[in-house]
Amino acid sequence: MSDNTKDEVAIRNLVENWASGVRRKDLGAILLNHSPNILMFDVPPPLESKGLEAYKRTWDLFFSWAHDPVVFNIREMSVTAGDDVAFVTALMRCAGTEVSGEDIELDFRLTIGLRKIDNQWIVMHEHHSIPATQ
Amino acid sequence: MSDNTKDEVAIRNLVENWASGVRRKDLGAILLNHSPNILMFDVPPPLESKGLEAYKRTWDLFFSWAHDPVVFNIREMSVTAGDDVAFVTALMRCAGTEVSGEDIELDFRLTIGLRKIDNQWIVMHEHHSIPATQ
Repeated sequence: MSDNTKDEVAIRNLVENWASGVRRKDLGAILLNHSPNILMFDVPPPLESKGLEAYKRTWDLFFSWAHDPVVFNIREMSVTAGDDVAFVTALMRCAGTEVSGEDIELDFRLTIGLRKIDNQWIVMHEHHSIPATQ
Repeated sequence: MSDNTKDEVAIRNLVENWASGVRRKDLGAILLNHSPNILMFDVPPPLESKGLEAYKRTWDLFFSWAHDPVVFNIREMSVTAGDDVAFVTALMRCAGTEVSGEDIELDFRLTIGLRKIDNQWIVMHEHHSIPATQ
């Protein structure tokens, strides 16, 4: 395998393990290999969350909404990896209960930005969103 | 300047020229240095737009909504550049008229994924979104 292919496989595994951590509600697995300075753009407000503590709170909010067992599936994923910077795009699906009591499945978009630090890929940025409904 | 700093400056200029192209409604400037295979996650539906033709249509939709003169401002931008892959995060502001007739200013999040091809940074991916309102 070329170095870039190895990096793409490593990143694909990292994202799959992270998504699996979300399905298990395993916060340790969710936070693994995430930068202390992570910048999160999440589906619900706020506009942005900076740092691991704020990132953690976005998962508290998600788990208060999500069905149990948790649906958090990668439908399509594409990895673009250089030597030390990479990004991932994905189409995802989750499911939860709205404030109205309605059970919904939600297709959302995910972009992840990573940097290789001390030979380990680290998540610096996540952008989760759904199209605006207005 | 280190190579990475030069790349960061080049990418910052690219994004600023692109945003300026949006403000001038200059489709040539908007499409410049964008991949034929660009993957766009836009603020309004659809969930995704693949390829330059579909990307162009997202701008037709934007300009049908946007005020004139166009507001499309970079409030904050951060560039993470490696040798051949990079990503950009930004907080942006635009303004337009809703279907309801209401004039609004919209703060949105932007993530861009780039790859250096033949010594030129090329936009492979854009993700524009606002937080969900439900």
